[in-house]
Amino acid sequence: MRKHLLEVDDLTPDDVDTLFATAAEMHDVQRRAVKKLPALRGRTVINLFFEDSTRTRSSFEIAGKWLSADTINITGKGSSASKGESLRDTVLTIAAMGVDALVVRHGASGAARRISEWVDASVINAGDGTHEHPTQALLDAYTLTRRLGELGDRHVVLVGDLTHSRVFRSNVRLLRMLGARVTVVAPPTLMPSGVDAWSARDGFATSWDLDAVLPTADAVMMLRVQRERMTGGFFPTAREYTVGYGLTRDRLALLGDTVPVLHPGPMNRGLEIAADAADAAQSLVLDQVSAGVAVRMSVLYHLLAGETA
Amino acid sequence: MRKHLLEVDDLTPDDVDTLFATAAEMHDVQRRAVKKLPALRGRTVINLFFEDSTRTRSSFEIAGKWLSADTINITGKGSSASKGESLRDTVLTIAAMGVDALVVRHGASGAARRISEWVDASVINAGDGTHEHPTQALLDAYTLTRRLGELGDRHVVLVGDLTHSRVFRSNVRLLRMLGARVTVVAPPTLMPSGVDAWSARDGFATSWDLDAVLPTADAVMMLRVQRERMTGGFFPTAREYTVGYGLTRDRLALLGDTVPVLHPGPMNRGLEIAADAADAAQSLVLDQVSAGVAVRMSVLYHLLAGETA
Amino acid sequence: MRKHLLEVDDLTPDDVDTLFATAAEMHDVQRRAVKKLPALRGRTVINLFFEDSTRTRSSFEIAGKWLSADTINITGKGSSASKGESLRDTVLTIAAMGVDALVVRHGASGAARRISEWVDASVINAGDGTHEHPTQALLDAYTLTRRLGELGDRHVVLVGDLTHSRVFRSNVRLLRMLGARVTVVAPPTLMPSGVDAWSARDGFATSWDLDAVLPTADAVMMLRVQRERMTGGFFPTAREYTVGYGLTRDRLALLGDTVPVLHPGPMNRGLEIAADAADAAQSLVLDQVSAGVAVRMSVLYHLLAGETA
Repeated sequence: MRKHLLEVDDLTPDDVDTLFATAAEMHDVQRRAVKKLPALRGRTVINLFFEDSTRTRSSFEIAGKWLSADTINITGKGSSASKGESLRDTVLTIAAMGVDALVVRHGASGAARRISEWVDASVINAGDGTHEHPTQALLDAYTLTRRLGELGDRHVVLVGDLTHSRVFRSNVRLLRMLGARVTVVAPPTLMPSGVDAWSARDGFATSWDLDAVLPTADAVMMLRVQRERMTGGFFPTAREYTVGYGLTRDRLALLGDTVPVLHPGPMNRGLEIAADAADAAQSLVLDQVSAGVAVRMSVLYHLLAGETA
Repeated sequence: MRKHLLEVDDLTPDDVDTLFATAAEMHDVQRRAVKKLPALRGRTVINLFFEDSTRTRSSFEIAGKWLSADTINITGKGSSASKGESLRDTVLTIAAMGVDALVVRHGASGAARRISEWVDASVINAGDGTHEHPTQALLDAYTLTRRLGELGDRHVVLVGDLTHSRVFRSNVRLLRMLGARVTVVAPPTLMPSGVDAWSARDGFATSWDLDAVLPTADAVMMLRVQRERMTGGFFPTAREYTVGYGLTRDRLALLGDTVPVLHPGPMNRGLEIAADAADAAQSLVLDQVSAGVAVRMSVLYHLLAGETA
Repeated sequence: MRKHLLEVDDLTPDDVDTLFATAAEMHDVQRRAVKKLPALRGRTVINLFFEDSTRTRSSFEIAGKWLSADTINITGKGSSASKGESLRDTVLTIAAMGVDALVVRHGASGAARRISEWVDASVINAGDGTHEHPTQALLDAYTLTRRLGELGDRHVVLVGDLTHSRVFRSNVRLLRMLGARVTVVAPPTLMPSGVDAWSARDGFATSWDLDAVLPTADAVMMLRVQRERMTGGFFPTAREYTVGYGLTRDRLALLGDTVPVLHPGPMNRGLEIAADAADAAQSLVLDQVSAGVAVRMSVLYHLLAGETA
């Protein structure tokens, strides 16, 4: 296992197999009354979040605590960064206290990699700008694998704001690595520039027509629309977005009632996903959240526990 | 014991006896140098506070830690709620991570009960709007019982802003359940509408005249005046409030020096309670705080420890 | 050992020896894979920060956790203080929950001492106004001792905004106690009023001429310039400050390459310290941070562990 988890390409298919196998064991721990393993006792994990994310931060915090690590939260707000300190000095300072892992969320693409070059601690990218969010991709693929079995030749459809989504970037890479067929669907204004060259290289399809794609989907992942994009002219109104690209009740019928529906959350109900879809029996939204803790336990375990072995 | 603690009426007198007996044991732990019991090892307690409350949050956090639970704080600010997520989705997401208890503070009356209908975890109401704050009532009654013995036929007087006080609502219910005689005192503008029907049903007295009531009191509980009410026209000036309804030095003399004085805090010294009263030997204000940890340990223990038994 | 650590003068030279000896042991723990000692299991340490300081708060939090204490963070923001409660009531309330130590950062000089007069818990001053920051002085002196050996007759030079620096006050006192010769250097506008009487009593030198002092320095400690001072007319421009009092590349050459350079952080690179100096092999900036955890573990240990002995 590598020292850091910065992007999906840091992993080999064997690494992913190992991570998923351990995640499955952690998932069992999660269902016990006593959720506690001694694996990371005496290790210190810092959640260093320059952007707010209750969901991701809490998931890592729970994962660390269940492995008996000491976990400490540091937010960008109120940190030394606001006193004019450079990012490098902030990070070096935190690392110098003697921490074993830094879980980093930062608004700038590439921030996690830069940080990993500065410190001895393991760095886990918990979202950097519009670049990557590898543990999200791992938990999504883990959730899909639990439902569908091996993903080879399965057709996974990702729908939404691809331009601004790090979840999309990490997911496409991991799903392709695992052999899935992938189609990404977005309105032209939210399709990333250069997507053609990229899709040719990585071997995924693109489409502007959700209704044409859905009938062949083995799984659908709806991405969050960030409402602030609406004022950016990316699409005219929320209603038009929903009509063209929302997972509405009608499109749910088109899918059939066994094809799993995923969403990384937080959901805009009524915008990119209808309540009927979010709450359907085939929705894996809460399974994703549950798997998130198990997958992050697995990542922390493999990055940190090895040192004592 | 029930699964949740949402309001005082969830409890029977036997439940309260059990909770108080355990709280007394926890109180002993609190005085030890090593304050740690293994009872909730491997359980996860989330403090989910949509409103700020350092006092209540810290009390629950200490209670959880002393029982060896993993405790995690989530505040409304910076949570997914601010990204447009519904309360239900926020709560379902947190619960799906695998938590055992949610301690919830929310500005809307009834929020804790709604949340308890959505999740498998135990829900403890740490204050919902102007509705209830049951652990506050429990710690108040526990503190009184330690000082006065059984509360049957004891006369407890509650004074202050009854309209906006969840502490008042929970306290009246619990004190009546325990057999105390209760008189509530407030200026007409801060007496809740419908109080007559309610007092007839639950069997408590109401009064606008504090000086007439104090001489028969076995205990006095002063409630916090929220200064923002003053601009709402509920009373003309702070000074007039104090003259009519404050526990002044003169009224303290009227009480005598053995009748206990309580206040749930934070206190507005010089407004609803004079410094002489707050710091008097008969003041139980800090006993209430101390009992708060013991009572919350007891509540967490009974809601959560049973599952493994 | 005393019960509190409020200022450097609370300590004798023997106390400092003891603290440093324990810190050296803690420093070894810090380099282990499993950083955990059971010494403070069942003790509760509250970080009560009325001013933001990620660095100091995290250092104390890690120190507490590695000693197995329960640690809880309370910030001034959102605390009962904002609801009109007095500082005394806020502190009494927190202490009444049953805590063993309060680590206090407050904007008012003398706040930590006042708090220590109100509560039974041990109080550690983590910075009070422009008064003192004793654990910073301890970690600085510890770091210097590790590099230079005994400080007797060593010449330590402190440079910067002395008027507003609690770090300066605590450091001068401790360095003098340990026998070092001390020169403090600042522009006239940032030299504290009354410094002449003080320097005569405590036996340190003052200077406005950094270049004249540097050649005889055995160590140089640069203090942070708070940029908000610039609008206060304390110095004309950042550039002029650097020309007169910054540790520039030229001055680093003047120092030679073995004289250690310290800075308590966060650094304003390019203002009071050049990148060449901050990153030089002789820079102890990160050693200070690392020592900070060890020294705070030592302080917590000696203040709290004794009670059970």
